[in-house]
Amino acid sequence: MEEKIKQLREALAEISDLSTVGAVLGWDQQTYMPPGGAEGRGNQLALIGRLAHERSTSPELGKLLDDLKPYAASLDPDSDEARLVKVTTRNYEKAVRVPTKHVVDFAQATTLGQQAWVEARSKSDFSIFRPHLEKIVALRQEYAAFFPNFEHPYDALLDDFEPNMKTADVKAIFDGLRPKQVELIKAISGKPQVDDSFLHQPFDEKKQWDFGVEVITKFGYDWNCGREDKAAHPFTVGFGIKDVRITTRVAPDFLNSMIFGTMHECGHALYGQGVAPELDRTGLEGGASLAVHESQSRMWENLVGRSLPFWQHFYPRLQEVFPQLGGVPLDKFYKGINKVQPSYIRVEADEATYNLHIMLRLEMEIAMLEGKVAVKDVPELWNVKMKEYLGVTPPNDAKGVLQDIHWSGGSIGYFSTYALGNLVSVQLWEKMIQDNPDVVEQIRQGKFETLLGWLRKNVHRHGGKFEPQELVQKVTGSKIDPAPYVRYLTKKYSEIYKL
Amino acid sequence: MEEKIKQLREALAEISDLSTVGAVLGWDQQTYMPPGGAEGRGNQLALIGRLAHERSTSPELGKLLDDLKPYAASLDPDSDEARLVKVTTRNYEKAVRVPTKHVVDFAQATTLGQQAWVEARSKSDFSIFRPHLEKIVALRQEYAAFFPNFEHPYDALLDDFEPNMKTADVKAIFDGLRPKQVELIKAISGKPQVDDSFLHQPFDEKKQWDFGVEVITKFGYDWNCGREDKAAHPFTVGFGIKDVRITTRVAPDFLNSMIFGTMHECGHALYGQGVAPELDRTGLEGGASLAVHESQSRMWENLVGRSLPFWQHFYPRLQEVFPQLGGVPLDKFYKGINKVQPSYIRVEADEATYNLHIMLRLEMEIAMLEGKVAVKDVPELWNVKMKEYLGVTPPNDAKGVLQDIHWSGGSIGYFSTYALGNLVSVQLWEKMIQDNPDVVEQIRQGKFETLLGWLRKNVHRHGGKFEPQELVQKVTGSKIDPAPYVRYLTKKYSEIYKL
Repeated sequence: MEEKIKQLREALAEISDLSTVGAVLGWDQQTYMPPGGAEGRGNQLALIGRLAHERSTSPELGKLLDDLKPYAASLDPDSDEARLVKVTTRNYEKAVRVPTKHVVDFAQATTLGQQAWVEARSKSDFSIFRPHLEKIVALRQEYAAFFPNFEHPYDALLDDFEPNMKTADVKAIFDGLRPKQVELIKAISGKPQVDDSFLHQPFDEKKQWDFGVEVITKFGYDWNCGREDKAAHPFTVGFGIKDVRITTRVAPDFLNSMIFGTMHECGHALYGQGVAPELDRTGLEGGASLAVHESQSRMWENLVGRSLPFWQHFYPRLQEVFPQLGGVPLDKFYKGINKVQPSYIRVEADEATYNLHIMLRLEMEIAMLEGKVAVKDVPELWNVKMKEYLGVTPPNDAKGVLQDIHWSGGSIGYFSTYALGNLVSVQLWEKMIQDNPDVVEQIRQGKFETLLGWLRKNVHRHGGKFEPQELVQKVTGSKIDPAPYVRYLTKKYSEIYKL
Repeated sequence: MEEKIKQLREALAEISDLSTVGAVLGWDQQTYMPPGGAEGRGNQLALIGRLAHERSTSPELGKLLDDLKPYAASLDPDSDEARLVKVTTRNYEKAVRVPTKHVVDFAQATTLGQQAWVEARSKSDFSIFRPHLEKIVALRQEYAAFFPNFEHPYDALLDDFEPNMKTADVKAIFDGLRPKQVELIKAISGKPQVDDSFLHQPFDEKKQWDFGVEVITKFGYDWNCGREDKAAHPFTVGFGIKDVRITTRVAPDFLNSMIFGTMHECGHALYGQGVAPELDRTGLEGGASLAVHESQSRMWENLVGRSLPFWQHFYPRLQEVFPQLGGVPLDKFYKGINKVQPSYIRVEADEATYNLHIMLRLEMEIAMLEGKVAVKDVPELWNVKMKEYLGVTPPNDAKGVLQDIHWSGGSIGYFSTYALGNLVSVQLWEKMIQDNPDVVEQIRQGKFETLLGWLRKNVHRHGGKFEPQELVQKVTGSKIDPAPYVRYLTKKYSEIYKL
C-alpha cells in the first residue's frame, strides 16, 4: 500500500502543479499582462485547465483510490494519508459525474458572460447581460442535476465551495442572523452619524503602499515566500505554500481601500503560507473552504485591523506618515473607520451591513436555481430586497444587480461563503482569546506572534484536511454559529454609536 | 489533406501553448518570483517541459507528418503549409532520436551544473565547476552521437540553434573575419584613446528608465503587445506574437547598460512582434534562428543606437534629461559610446573586439567536444587565447573561463550565433540602405518607420519558415558573409580613431 500511496501522491503532485501553473498564468493576467496577450492567455489557460481536468478524472486515479480505500479505513481518520484519500475520493467522485461537454459549455458561457457583464455594467443595461445569465443559470441547473443525491439542487453548487455544507444549514444560520443585524442597523440609524470625512482626502500613494507593507510585515507575512503587486480587483493566490502572493489597490484620495484591503489579503496569505509543508502539492494545500479562508482575511481586516487596540499602536505611526491626520484624535479616527452606513455596494459595506448584501444574493440565487424567479425579474426583485434589508434603492442596475462579477463567471453558490467567513472569524476569535487572554494587549503593542501562532496551530497547518464544519467544531467546540458574531457587532457598535 | 493539416495545426498549437506557458513561468522566475518559490517553480517547469516533449515526439505526430509529406511536396515550397510540414518534420526527426533517459540526465546535469557554476564563479574556483563541465561535455558528446549523419559532432549541436548551419561554414566565416578584426584592434591600439569618463557618473535610475522607454517607443515597440521589467540578466521573451516582453537593467552610475541593453532587447522584441499572425501557435513564431534574432537586436543596438545620426536626434533630449552631460559635445559623446578597449568580459565588449570573444569560445567548444582539450586544461588555454586574440590576460577565472553561464546550462554550440548575428546585421543593413537610401536621414530625424517596415517585410514576418542561410540569401542575395561587417567596422573606427 505504501507504493500505492506514493503513486497517489505523484498523481496529485502533477495535478497540483498544473493547478499552480494555471494560477501563475492567472496572476500575470491580472497584474502585468499587456492587453494584446489576452487571447493567447485564454488558449494557455484552457489547455492547462483541460490537462488538469483529464488527470483529475482519469480512470487510473479512480482505480488507485478504490484500491486505497480499505487501507485508508485502517488508519487514524485524522492522519494526512487517510484525509488525502478521503478528500481526493470526494473530489474525484464529483468531477467524474460532470461530462466534458458540460465543462466546455460552461467555460464558453462564462467567458462570453463575463464580456457581456463588463459591457452591461458600464452601460448599466441589464438587458445586455440577461441572455447570458439565463444560459448560466440553466447550466448551473444542469450541473446540479448531475448530483441527484443532494437534497436541494443548490447543495451541489455550495458543496464545491464549502465541502459538505447544506443549503438548509446556511439558511438556518442566516435566519438566526438576519433579524439581529436588521435590528442593529435600525438602532444605529437612530443615532447621530460619525464623521469619516478625514478618510476622504488626498493620501500619497507610495506612502500608503509603504504603510501597508509595514503593517503586514508586522502581522508576519513572509516576504521570502510571497510578494505584493497592484491589481484592479485585489486577490491572493498561492503557487504552492512557498509562493503566496497578494495584490492590493491604492486609492489616491481614500485611505480605506489600501489599508483594509491589504490586511484582508494578508489574512488569506497567512493561511496559505501556514499550511503544513507535507500537504504541499497534494491538493490539500489550499485551505478548508472559502468560508474558512474568508474567516482569516476578515479576522485580520476587521477583528485586528478595525479594532481600537490595533490603532492605539499604529495610529501615531499613521499620523507620522500622513501629517494631515494630525488634528484627528484616535477616538474620532477609530469611529470613522467603523462608520455604519447602508449603501448599494457590497464591497464598500461596513461590518454591520455587509452580511445583508450576502443574504440578498443567496436568496436570489436559490430562487433562480429553483426556477421560482425568472432572470428577467431579477433586477426588480434586487431593488425590492435592498429596500427591505438595507433601506436603500440603487439608482441604477450598475449599482444594483450588475455590481458583482460572480454570476457572470458562473460562481453561483459562492456569495454565502463571505458571510459565513465573517461568522467563523468571530467564533475562532472568541476561542483564541479564551486560550490567550493577553492577545488584545499584545496587539496594543503591535505584536501578533501569539495570534498567528494560534491560527497556524489550529487552522492553517491543516490545509484542506477537514471540512469547514468539522474544522470549526474541532477548534471551537461548536459548528458555525451566528451568535458570537451578533455579540461582537452589538458590543462594538453599542460603544461606537452609544446605543 | 486539409483535415490533416488542421490536425497538424492543432497539435502544433498545443505544443506551442505549452512552450509559451513555460515561457511565462520562466519570465516570472527571472523578474518577480520570491526566493521561496524556486523549488515549486522547478517542479512546474519540469512538468510543462515533459508534456511538451511528449507531444513533440509522439508517434501520432510522426504519422501525421508522414501522411502530409507527399501533399507538402505538391505545394509551393515557400508556402506556410509546406514550410510548416518541413520545419516540423525536421524538429520531429531530431527530437525522436534523443532517448528520454538522455533528456532527463541532461536536465539533471545542467541544473546541478548551474548551481556549481554560480558557486565557482563567486569563489573564482574552476575546480568546483570542473566535474560538472566534464559531465556536460560528455553528455553533449553523447547527444552528438545520436546524429551520425552529421559530418562533425559539433554540427549536431550547432544545428539546434542555427538550422542546417555547418561547423565548417562557421569556421570559414570566422577565418575570414579573425585576421581583419585583430588587425583593426591593433591599429586602434596605436592611436590616442577616446574619453568616456562622462558615461561613468551617477544617473538617476528612473530617468534612465524613462529615456529608454522613450527611445524604444519611437523604434516602434508595441506596448499593447508587450511590457518592460527589470531583470538581473536582461532577456526578451514572447508568449506568442501578441505578448512579447523585454527586460532591462539600470546601472546607477553607468549609462550604457540601460541605453544599449534596452535597444538590444527591443530589437529582439520587434522581431517577435513582427511575425505574421498566421504563424502564431505553429512553432514557427519564434524566428529563423538565434543568429537571425541576434542580427535584429544588434542592428537596433549598434547600427542604429551607436550611430551618429541617431544621437544627432536624441542627444539634445538626453542632455535635457541629464544636465550633467551639458558640457559634453555630441562628437565626444559619440566617440565615448564607441570606445574600443580589449577587455576580459564578453558582455562588456565593444563592437570591434566582441567577435574575438566568440571565436575563442567556439574554438574551445569544438576542441572539448572533439576531446582534443581536456576540461582540466580549459582555464589555461582560455588565458593563452585571450592574450593571443585580445592582448589581455584575465586576473582570475571568474573574469576568465567562468564568466558566462552558457556551458553550465549545457548550451555548447550557442556562442557562435552571437558573432553570426553581428555579421548578418550589417549584411541586412547594407541591403536595407540600398533599398531605402534615405533611412539614415530619417534616423537623424528620429523616424524609424521605413527601417522597421523593411525588416517586417523582409525578415520578421517569415518567422521560422526559412533556415538562416536561406533567409539571408533570399534577402541579401548572398549567404552569411563577414565582408560587410569588416567594411562597417573599418569605416566606423577609421573615423573615430583617425586610423
